[in-house]
Amino acid sequence: MNLELALRMCEAAMRQARREGALISVAVVDEGGHLVAFQRMDGAQIAGPALAPGKAYTAVAHRMPTADLARLARPGGELYGLAAGDRYVCLGGGIPLAEPRPGRGVMGAVGVSGGTVPQDVACAEAAAALWEGE
Amino acid sequence: MNLELALRMCEAAMRQARREGALISVAVVDEGGHLVAFQRMDGAQIAGPALAPGKAYTAVAHRMPTADLARLARPGGELYGLAAGDRYVCLGGGIPLAEPRPGRGVMGAVGVSGGTVPQDVACAEAAAALWEGE
Amino acid sequence: MNLELALRMCEAAMRQARREGALISVAVVDEGGHLVAFQRMDGAQIAGPALAPGKAYTAVAHRMPTADLARLARPGGELYGLAAGDRYVCLGGGIPLAEPRPGRGVMGAVGVSGGTVPQDVACAEAAAALWEGE
Amino acid sequence: MNLELALRMCEAAMRQARREGALISVAVVDEGGHLVAFQRMDGAQIAGPALAPGKAYTAVAHRMPTADLARLARPGGELYGLAAGDRYVCLGGGIPLAEPRPGRGVMGAVGVSGGTVPQDVACAEAAAALWEGE
Repeated sequence: MNLELALRMCEAAMRQARREGALISVAVVDEGGHLVAFQRMDGAQIAGPALAPGKAYTAVAHRMPTADLARLARPGGELYGLAAGDRYVCLGGGIPLAEPRPGRGVMGAVGVSGGTVPQDVACAEAAAALWEGE
Repeated sequence: MNLELALRMCEAAMRQARREGALISVAVVDEGGHLVAFQRMDGAQIAGPALAPGKAYTAVAHRMPTADLARLARPGGELYGLAAGDRYVCLGGGIPLAEPRPGRGVMGAVGVSGGTVPQDVACAEAAAALWEGE
Repeated sequence: MNLELALRMCEAAMRQARREGALISVAVVDEGGHLVAFQRMDGAQIAGPALAPGKAYTAVAHRMPTADLARLARPGGELYGLAAGDRYVCLGGGIPLAEPRPGRGVMGAVGVSGGTVPQDVACAEAAAALWEGE
Repeated sequence: MNLELALRMCEAAMRQARREGALISVAVVDEGGHLVAFQRMDGAQIAGPALAPGKAYTAVAHRMPTADLARLARPGGELYGLAAGDRYVCLGGGIPLAEPRPGRGVMGAVGVSGGTVPQDVACAEAAAALWEGE
């Protein structure tokens, strides 16, 4: 991960948010789950600074989209109970960013919060697409 | 938000609590989710100092009544997993207070805890009605 | 501790603050260190909701004024290291409220934050004087 | 505070960091202490995501540069013990941003971490100068 790319991912997420009519916060973290860039759109809710980095951290920590984790963390799911963790946000909108070569682990993640969950996912996917295209 | 209004909102919530036969804590926070006023009725449980400000903070952070959030955060709901956050209280009884002019965001919130959830909601609504009447 | 008395203590602290030309937050807690009443004057800093209850809690927890604790918690002092605790605020402005009969422990505390430390102490003392006069 | 200005402040801080030969993280928060923008330069330490927002939050919460707070929070200083709080970072590099009209409080803050304290301060001042120039 580098800052220049992280900033372009923030831009991509916010561009999608404007298409969706959503006001979002977007966070990009590195392979350690540590914040590289964060941006909150004017008027976006103050939950964003907590949830967007949390989704990105969670996506790195578990190496899967938080939308998938949300399903696994439901009652009856394999990871039920995970949602109790302090820094974990098991809600759709966090997407891990894989290393180009297969089988090499996760290089970071993007997390989006502020819209509906489907909107957050769409914005995070727009940012992740930019990573995939590199 | 100002202290004089916040105190009158506390009064209104406790007046409703007496009607309900409930012993409550009530918190009023500003647009940043920071406490302006808090009052705990004699005999009300010590969970109140944690839950009432938490409900108010959550209502500001997500710009919706925590009763709505509670529904969304249930297993199977869109926001299941949201309750993970440290300061989040996704239980009915937190109500955001909107700016008078439309489309201008949230100016604070009231949070009530100590009764049943419907009682807490009724008390918070009594306080919010006072805000709406300003 | 009861709410009616706690509210009068808040009033007394704020009256003193106006004399001092300070903008404060004031918190009153019970013998368990749990918040009974909190008020933040208009324009007072947002550190108050964290520090005023923290000072009051600390004063109950250690059964001494936080100004005394501040001295003991200095490097070389008997309680050096105490200041690291999460909820502890070892700064002047927290005053324990003793049971009327001697040797019977602490019934609560008042904590003030927002002015200089001497101003905070003066405001907390004004509130505590009201307790002593009961 | 708005995102466009926050991003320009991040740029100004990083421009100064390059002059200083430092690798920094920079955070801009609103009047409630909530993150608006964050950027970490490539190669900057992972402490930045904790410390830069913490300094900015602290500068808002106490309405003074954290370099001043650092002096007050030293052993023997009036605010020794303040550093105890969870989110408090009493180190130089956080600067509050005042409302244009006098006597109106703080509208946000910038926090910088990653260089030496004097470097962090210089970077935060470069960002704050941009605010003052608006």
